Amino acid sequence: MWCSRTAFGRLQRIAPCTVTGFHRAMSTLPKVYVTRKVPPDGLDILRKSGQVQFEMWDSDDPVPRVELLKKVKGCEGILCVLTEKIDAQLLNAAGPNLKVVSTMSVGFDHLSLDELKKRGIRVGYTPDVLTDCVAELTVALLLATSRRLIEATHEAKTGGWGTWRTLWLCGHELANSTVGILGLGRIGVAIAERLKPFKVKKFIYTDVAPRPDLANMIEAEYVSLDELAKQSDFLAICCALTPETHGICNWNLFSKMKKNAIFINTSR
Amino acid sequence: MWCSRTAFGRLQRIAPCTVTGFHRAMSTLPKVYVTRKVPPDGLDILRKSGQVQFEMWDSDDPVPRVELLKKVKGCEGILCVLTEKIDAQLLNAAGPNLKVVSTMSVGFDHLSLDELKKRGIRVGYTPDVLTDCVAELTVALLLATSRRLIEATHEAKTGGWGTWRTLWLCGHELANSTVGILGLGRIGVAIAERLKPFKVKKFIYTDVAPRPDLANMIEAEYVSLDELAKQSDFLAICCALTPETHGICNWNLFSKMKKNAIFINTSR
Repeated sequence: MWCSRTAFGRLQRIAPCTVTGFHRAMSTLPKVYVTRKVPPDGLDILRKSGQVQFEMWDSDDPVPRVELLKKVKGCEGILCVLTEKIDAQLLNAAGPNLKVVSTMSVGFDHLSLDELKKRGIRVGYTPDVLTDCVAELTVALLLATSRRLIEATHEAKTGGWGTWRTLWLCGHELANSTVGILGLGRIGVAIAERLKPFKVKKFIYTDVAPRPDLANMIEAEYVSLDELAKQSDFLAICCALTPETHGICNWNLFSKMKKNAIFINTSR
Repeated sequence: MWCSRTAFGRLQRIAPCTVTGFHRAMSTLPKVYVTRKVPPDGLDILRKSGQVQFEMWDSDDPVPRVELLKKVKGCEGILCVLTEKIDAQLLNAAGPNLKVVSTMSVGFDHLSLDELKKRGIRVGYTPDVLTDCVAELTVALLLATSRRLIEATHEAKTGGWGTWRTLWLCGHELANSTVGILGLGRIGVAIAERLKPFKVKKFIYTDVAPRPDLANMIEAEYVSLDELAKQSDFLAICCALTPETHGICNWNLFSKMKKNAIFINTSR
């Protein structure tokens, strides 16, 4: 149901002035289908615009394909996430009204760009917005692993946490360590910037070719994949999954790594 | 048993040259009691010196008091950790040979300094060595909490980790946040230095009085305890437990904090 009573009630509370116009002209407003529960700030832009009527798949789980194909019919806009394949079948189901598809994601592998282009449909996506978050999460995972927080929590929960012990669950500190980055992009730079004050000794990286523009920002040295594996105390995987990177973190790489090295994968 | 066969065997592997002299002169070498399994690097200093014979309580758990009182008899040195009370009783048990007590700890509340002074016994401790580690651990705990790594690990282990969801276990990012420090010392400064590249908006702190020397290093603003509680998105407790700080993190403080604030306690 488009613009249900409930949604209408919520709109009144949020922006009572725009709701009436919205309500009156509802049937003629362009339809937008939102394929997943998106953050309230994003929805508010749609709500407050008064320029569209929208329906949202109000769930944390993906909309079933059959439902999606039904719901997009006659839409002028689709706001999707990376679980929806926007291909010829879906575009045909939407029909000729569709003017724009926006995906709340950095990647757009789920969009058939050829099909979209063929139909003159514009595409929106959200590059860069995750750089800081992914870097923060990578550092969080790295520290939680090196400082053994998961094991420590387990011990605390199961009664294994007794008296203080000199080396128990101490882990390894970042100071004087070598941090390797596989695939140096904006995220790799952001990770290095965050790790630097932990007194990391050296940053090294590998990629299809040296990237001096980025590497200079963090004084990172270009090395081969072999050297990256051998030298890294902490190895962060920051590349995208492509035919070139598929399977490169394999037995061959792991077997070259230091015995105590920590491997953190936050790649796409 | 002092310098057991096993210990002797290990010594031979590590430093075969010094062992013979050590072995011959063993009975006359000053005795040192090590009250806990300490890191190998520390023990190696004792081993390789060839100047002492030592015995270690080779366990992760504290030496029982009765055992300790027996073992220190006739020692010239004691290397302890913070679980051993070095008081008049123990010093009397050790006897007049005791010349030095070293504790592998930053704190020395477990040492009766008056009693040690009275007997002319020198004291060693390890100030500062933990500054970087505690700061690193504080950041690790802060990120693990804000990014909900413990809950996420639990979900992954118990089958709750399904499809990607837009906001599920996202947590809160450090960017644009206010970080409060209760008790600004070297550790507080080290924490702020590590958090800064995460794009923290503002550092605030409180202490018995402003500490401009330290605060200027991290551009931190002095505020009252009330303001610290009210403004902080992340609150790190870095003070030592003293009569003045006892109980200051109480209902009154917690009730003033933001609903989503994160409280990290790595104080002594």
